[in-house]
Amino acid sequence: EPSLEYEFTRRRIQTNIAEIWNFFSSELGKVRKAVAAGHASADLEESINQVLLQGAEHKRSLLSDMERMRQSDGYEAWRHKEARDLSDLVQRRLHHLQNPSDCQNARKLVCKLNKGCGYGCQLHHVVYCFIVAYATERTLILKSRGWRYHKGGWEEVFQPVSNSCHDAGTANTYNWPGKPNTQVLVLPIIDSLMPRPPYLPLAVPEDLAPRLKRLHGDPIVWWVGQFLKYLLRPQPTTRDFLTSGMRNLGWERPIVGVHVRRTDKVGTEAACHSVEEYMTYVEDYYRTLEVNGSTVARRIFLASDDAQVIEEARRKYPQYQIIGDPEVARMASVSTRYTDTALNGIILDIHLLSMSDHLVCTFSSQVCRVAYEIMQTMYPDAAHRFKSLDDIYYYGGQNAHNRRVVIAHKPRTHEDLQLRVGDLVSVAGNHWDGNSKGKNTRTNQGGLFPSFKVEEKVDTAKLPLYAGI
Amino acid sequence: EPSLEYEFTRRRIQTNIAEIWNFFSSELGKVRKAVAAGHASADLEESINQVLLQGAEHKRSLLSDMERMRQSDGYEAWRHKEARDLSDLVQRRLHHLQNPSDCQNARKLVCKLNKGCGYGCQLHHVVYCFIVAYATERTLILKSRGWRYHKGGWEEVFQPVSNSCHDAGTANTYNWPGKPNTQVLVLPIIDSLMPRPPYLPLAVPEDLAPRLKRLHGDPIVWWVGQFLKYLLRPQPTTRDFLTSGMRNLGWERPIVGVHVRRTDKVGTEAACHSVEEYMTYVEDYYRTLEVNGSTVARRIFLASDDAQVIEEARRKYPQYQIIGDPEVARMASVSTRYTDTALNGIILDIHLLSMSDHLVCTFSSQVCRVAYEIMQTMYPDAAHRFKSLDDIYYYGGQNAHNRRVVIAHKPRTHEDLQLRVGDLVSVAGNHWDGNSKGKNTRTNQGGLFPSFKVEEKVDTAKLPLYAGI
Ligand SMILES: Nc1nc2c(ncn2[C@@H]2O[C@H](COP(=O)(O)OP(=O)(O)O)[C@@H](O)[C@H]2O)c(=O)[nH]1
Ligand SMILES: Nc1nc2c(ncn2[C@@H]2O[C@H](COP(=O)(O)OP(=O)(O)O)[C@@H](O)[C@H]2O)c(=O)[nH]1
Repeated sequence: EPSLEYEFTRRRIQTNIAEIWNFFSSELGKVRKAVAAGHASADLEESINQVLLQGAEHKRSLLSDMERMRQSDGYEAWRHKEARDLSDLVQRRLHHLQNPSDCQNARKLVCKLNKGCGYGCQLHHVVYCFIVAYATERTLILKSRGWRYHKGGWEEVFQPVSNSCHDAGTANTYNWPGKPNTQVLVLPIIDSLMPRPPYLPLAVPEDLAPRLKRLHGDPIVWWVGQFLKYLLRPQPTTRDFLTSGMRNLGWERPIVGVHVRRTDKVGTEAACHSVEEYMTYVEDYYRTLEVNGSTVARRIFLASDDAQVIEEARRKYPQYQIIGDPEVARMASVSTRYTDTALNGIILDIHLLSMSDHLVCTFSSQVCRVAYEIMQTMYPDAAHRFKSLDDIYYYGGQNAHNRRVVIAHKPRTHEDLQLRVGDLVSVAGNHWDGNSKGKNTRTNQGGLFPSFKVEEKVDTAKLPLYAGI
Repeated sequence: EPSLEYEFTRRRIQTNIAEIWNFFSSELGKVRKAVAAGHASADLEESINQVLLQGAEHKRSLLSDMERMRQSDGYEAWRHKEARDLSDLVQRRLHHLQNPSDCQNARKLVCKLNKGCGYGCQLHHVVYCFIVAYATERTLILKSRGWRYHKGGWEEVFQPVSNSCHDAGTANTYNWPGKPNTQVLVLPIIDSLMPRPPYLPLAVPEDLAPRLKRLHGDPIVWWVGQFLKYLLRPQPTTRDFLTSGMRNLGWERPIVGVHVRRTDKVGTEAACHSVEEYMTYVEDYYRTLEVNGSTVARRIFLASDDAQVIEEARRKYPQYQIIGDPEVARMASVSTRYTDTALNGIILDIHLLSMSDHLVCTFSSQVCRVAYEIMQTMYPDAAHRFKSLDDIYYYGGQNAHNRRVVIAHKPRTHEDLQLRVGDLVSVAGNHWDGNSKGKNTRTNQGGLFPSFKVEEKVDTAKLPLYAGI
């Protein structure tokens, strides 16, 4: 039996989808009339501003109701249990993989933590190694002495990836791809991996896929999160550092996690986004929480590699409690970034970003993507708890990201793709204006298309079943 | 456990609510820019037209998904069973009320079918009488000889309202309100009812209200529908007439029921709406069915009191199968309306309208409101299966229709109401442009307000429990 709240909210959403359309279609009709009648520019612009303000209220009400509906649909307990069961299952498999009874003779995969890039990028490198280890049933051996972020290596900050089997031993090592009976295989970075196996992101294990598709809005992010959950088990010093860090900062919830990536990233791999742009989405998040009349304290955790950003935000948003540490941001600048102190800073920043209720950031930054991936371990389904100012989620070195067309599309302009139901579109990005960009794999044509006309296609790969674990 | 389809569709709706907002806010921003840049009127108007076309697609996708979501949420079987159980319960109570074991001494309510108005209006009169009978535990006695629509009376077309207790008998009759021990009470028309009891529409029985609020989007319509279900049990001649009528017309589903009320109603109680206006909503209904790529045959049942309307529709919409009978429409004109033949016509028209998948009409007409009320007996919840070109649903003689404010509103113009969460607004109508009109019962101020900021408040009244039935 459904609850009253569920049925009532479901109907309310259905009615108000019609109402938001009534509103926009009517208001656009009025604007069109006013244009035809030659009304003054300033008046037209002001009317449009009013429509945008009102329309935003419609949208917040609908999204707030969708949350309420999910919470009252009778399936929340199941979602929490299923998330727990699936996570426990994967963590048991990883523990089993990493702690073979006979280490000496166990098959192994050697991964070197020496990729020439930032911390987020290197975490993604280790996750990639771990995925290959899982897929080939090889214990992951992580070689991290001399790590640019901490000479002492991975185990200075995180628990070793194995309790008992840390070394490749004396066996001969071979480079990827090796042979099935090669005991110790060395993996290159994903960029150089040849041949590429089918189980790289965005693929998820075929045996878990049906449950993941039901539980989670973006199964690959959940899958990656599971590897990070295992990898980032902190050493006691790190745990203490995180605990005191949170306390000293006065961190509390609800809180929106904001990551502003500047310095070397801007102008090269990403555009510069103003503090105002991030804060617009933060404010919208809080207004959505307040739709039904409550008042919510405005609070963000602000992480950046530019200390000036934190000072600027505090100056411009006095109504916000802005939790952040300009000292950490200062250490994150390029010249001081690869030090033990800065490492602690980025570990803390990512930890706190991952623990927020909602992320506002640029997904072009691996820092934020890592935080988003870890966040998936905190909720049954946190796939929607983000606003990216630029890219959609992606995994460096991934296979093509395909979405399936569910609604046909006739091109409106020369920039548009033609879509037939069933086509697979290789997605490049979402322009956050109703359109996405991609390539129709049937016609080989690239262009724009309405984002709502496609649905996520979850890629799967046959992986070991780890039976009995 | 939820189904994959439910979870997937739920997430899709949530994502695409954000997408429809991304679309409209971005497009309105572009229009604003173009206005500021002094673009040509014709170009601006054309852009706006494109936005409206595209926006309609977003809307249809969302509403189509809401339907799919409901069908896959795991509660459909319950909804059908609950609707059946509630209807059976009410029908048993009505049967019990109308067939007292001791007719001679039973308390009675006398209702005369002599109200000076049309068929729909008269049905509503009988329903009102029946509601009072139910509330006062009096067997309804319907006096209909000399009925303007059929001299022979009600029983010529419908089964008598009682199998065994048809007459007031020889007891003295008293006019409303009478006394509790008055055996036979005579009821005036609702317009003259003094004092007015609390159980008139829009009130529903308190004992059924919790179940009705959960099952149905507009409990009063369901409640009225139950009385019509009982009242309109056809005599064999009527049943045969309806069956052969449907067969001769070639009636089949899916079908949209369209009622175009013209002649004496237009210019007095309602505005004239063009055939095009009705058909716009019919076309939108079918496009929503076709969102995911299927093709659905365009078919309407067209009822009118103006035969020319049917001919006009057939001429202008050759792609539509237009089921209807100009002869019935001709007989429905004012001069021939009050005849046995015309009565058969209106009974058939209302029957077929009530059996359609969706109604497009003017709720200012009692004909359509009756069809809508009867339609509620065909589905667990058909409250949303209508598009009214004018009024929201109402019951002639009703108490105030109050809605509760759930989102505060600051007036945008001098026409707007100020709303605080918890206020009760007495609703006059929906302007179908995002706004409704009403009066804030706290401030006594009348004006406009966004329809989505209020929710339905179901009025209840303490009614006999009919224990043991
Ligand atoms: N502490 C801290 N460090 C940051 C922040 N943003 C960037 N950094 C530093 O800059 C590096 C960026 O490299 P990477 O993690 O690969 O992410 P990307 O370059 O942003 O895609 C991080 O690893 C940090 O060392 C931040 O918000 N806080
Ligand atoms: N057969 C038929 N009769 C109609 C139709 N529309 C109006 N009429 C006639 O006109 C009367 C209108 O009065 P009423 O039922 O009170 O509804 P209203 O006046 O439209 O609110 C009906 O009862 C019919 O006799 C129609 O579509 N079909």
